[in-house]
Amino acid sequence: MTGPRYTDLVNSLPSTVPFVGPEELERSRGTPFRARLGANESLFGPSPAAVKAMQAEALEIWKYGDPTSHDLRAALADHMQARVENILVGEGIDGLLGNLVRLLVAPGDAVVTSDGAYPTFNYHVAGFGGVLHKVPYRDDREDPAALLTRAKEVDAKLVYLANPDNPMGSWYPGTDILAALDDLPDGCLLLLDEAYIEFAPTGVAAPIDADDPRVIRMRTFSKGYGMAGARIGYAVGAPDLIRAFDRIRNHFGMNRVAQAGALAALRDTAWLAHVQDQVATARDRIAAIAADNGLVALPSATNFVAVDCGADGAFATRVLDALLARGVFVRKPVVPPQDRCIRISCGRPQDLDVLAETLPQALAAARA
Amino acid sequence: MTGPRYTDLVNSLPSTVPFVGPEELERSRGTPFRARLGANESLFGPSPAAVKAMQAEALEIWKYGDPTSHDLRAALADHMQARVENILVGEGIDGLLGNLVRLLVAPGDAVVTSDGAYPTFNYHVAGFGGVLHKVPYRDDREDPAALLTRAKEVDAKLVYLANPDNPMGSWYPGTDILAALDDLPDGCLLLLDEAYIEFAPTGVAAPIDADDPRVIRMRTFSKGYGMAGARIGYAVGAPDLIRAFDRIRNHFGMNRVAQAGALAALRDTAWLAHVQDQVATARDRIAAIAADNGLVALPSATNFVAVDCGADGAFATRVLDALLARGVFVRKPVVPPQDRCIRISCGRPQDLDVLAETLPQALAAARA
Repeated sequence: MTGPRYTDLVNSLPSTVPFVGPEELERSRGTPFRARLGANESLFGPSPAAVKAMQAEALEIWKYGDPTSHDLRAALADHMQARVENILVGEGIDGLLGNLVRLLVAPGDAVVTSDGAYPTFNYHVAGFGGVLHKVPYRDDREDPAALLTRAKEVDAKLVYLANPDNPMGSWYPGTDILAALDDLPDGCLLLLDEAYIEFAPTGVAAPIDADDPRVIRMRTFSKGYGMAGARIGYAVGAPDLIRAFDRIRNHFGMNRVAQAGALAALRDTAWLAHVQDQVATARDRIAAIAADNGLVALPSATNFVAVDCGADGAFATRVLDALLARGVFVRKPVVPPQDRCIRISCGRPQDLDVLAETLPQALAAARA
Repeated sequence: MTGPRYTDLVNSLPSTVPFVGPEELERSRGTPFRARLGANESLFGPSPAAVKAMQAEALEIWKYGDPTSHDLRAALADHMQARVENILVGEGIDGLLGNLVRLLVAPGDAVVTSDGAYPTFNYHVAGFGGVLHKVPYRDDREDPAALLTRAKEVDAKLVYLANPDNPMGSWYPGTDILAALDDLPDGCLLLLDEAYIEFAPTGVAAPIDADDPRVIRMRTFSKGYGMAGARIGYAVGAPDLIRAFDRIRNHFGMNRVAQAGALAALRDTAWLAHVQDQVATARDRIAAIAADNGLVALPSATNFVAVDCGADGAFATRVLDALLARGVFVRKPVVPPQDRCIRISCGRPQDLDVLAETLPQALAAARA
């Protein structure tokens, strides 16, 4: 009796996963973290109006969600100065990424990204047999010109660029992104990941026409709107591309509580402003804590701060492990030279108090 | 300037969708349905304990869900007399089906199902380039022997069988399913869809060892547990197969409100018993309404009833359209001779009052 016959592609895939979740780390530790600052979640929480909408919608959970996400898409179209036909709602950017890769990437097709950029994107490219070409960061930022040059060289179908960037928190003016599009090779789509855009200064959102067929933008309710656990994000692109997702997506895949929460969250602009304010304060506090310990915090247009630990990747990993051992969940870049940093999500004062308490101990342990 | 270059497979896919949702039909009508009896949702609602758990978890929505669904899997393992390693939690059976097909089916690979069985399964098979072979129903039931014979003939990698069956509501004793496994060809996996198992008589759940490598079972919180809008289901299978999903699934894809609700729903066995009782009452009432109108309701082990409209598919479609026009959302089988039926989900007394009121009018209109 033989087992199931997997595809050749599946047989070729490693059984690694993109990330280990904090709950699994907590179970290994045997005790909860004191500060959950590793996944760029919003410790300032979701809009109270979104919570209220989700609690009300829980009573309606017996019904499937609207597969067209009609009301939310209409609100998002308004929010993005686009038409409903430009908007796709999906199961977070992770889910949208998987479907976009599936639309474009057959085994052997070339894809370009930055070395050290979002691992879940790389996971999806590998999962569909794509060949990933990586371009190094330049001065701790992604390098759009190099990405597009490489895309031309390898005849890429898809290029990934995050603005602002994760894991470094760096950014470009949106007009730079728009200008770079002119160098995009024909038949290559730019995936512009704007997951952190709500934390960025004015002008970082690229002024791209929603109908521009060269680019698809992705945004999420996981970061600025504090709803990571709801798994809801959206894409903005030309109607033909948005419609193409209908050929493969899980049409009845959206949780209706998430749909209701996202709609309420989008309308609560006062809460978003409050979170933006709290995040700015937390970025300054993280930079101050870093400085108190002789470390340098990199500038950030996101809800996290990359802190340069002042030595190599092995040292930063020791700092990270020492923080984890002291109950502080953080993560770090993995590719040199960015791997000299640890990445700390913005937290509330009480979370950053724990960081201030434990960072000196972690540095001492890493140096011992 | 060219647009994105889709894969050849995507270019070959039609832009049809498996189902039009009731909200879209309502928007076309310009008015809500009076009775929502078309999607086999549970009009009796979710467990109040599940609602309470979801409402509490809404406050925690800023955190990603546990990618391992640890607590829920442990509870499901207990529920299924299995080990945690046998259990996979996913975004409803629809999501699990998509990933299972992706694991096994490369372009050109053979898959077997019944003609008229679950369209979303067929959608996923087409979406990964599989070649679908269909076996007719026999006496309004799926035909396991014919499915397995066909699987052998076409060297199928995967066979789909629902027990109880949708859209007819028919069923086999679980021991029949277990016995049929002996005829499953080597290297062919049986996908046993048990979405409706909570409504079936004792003995319909197949007594399959969770470690049996020949079969994967799928169940859901959408039907008996009344949480269709939460998008959460689970698969039970051999550990190697369950682990294989980790190579391709969206690890951070689960909504944490859904995880919390499912755990509470699973524990509220009293609510499930209440729903089972209400469903049994509703099935009898639908049969009585059918009989009052000279129609025959087929026996059902599910939360819906297929009602034979007594003529051909075109007539049943006219009945369906006339019910829709009168505010009653129902669906119907599409393949002859099962398409002579309409499929009516179990509802509360007030929902079935609307059915009793409108069915005579719909029949008159269909006959006119």
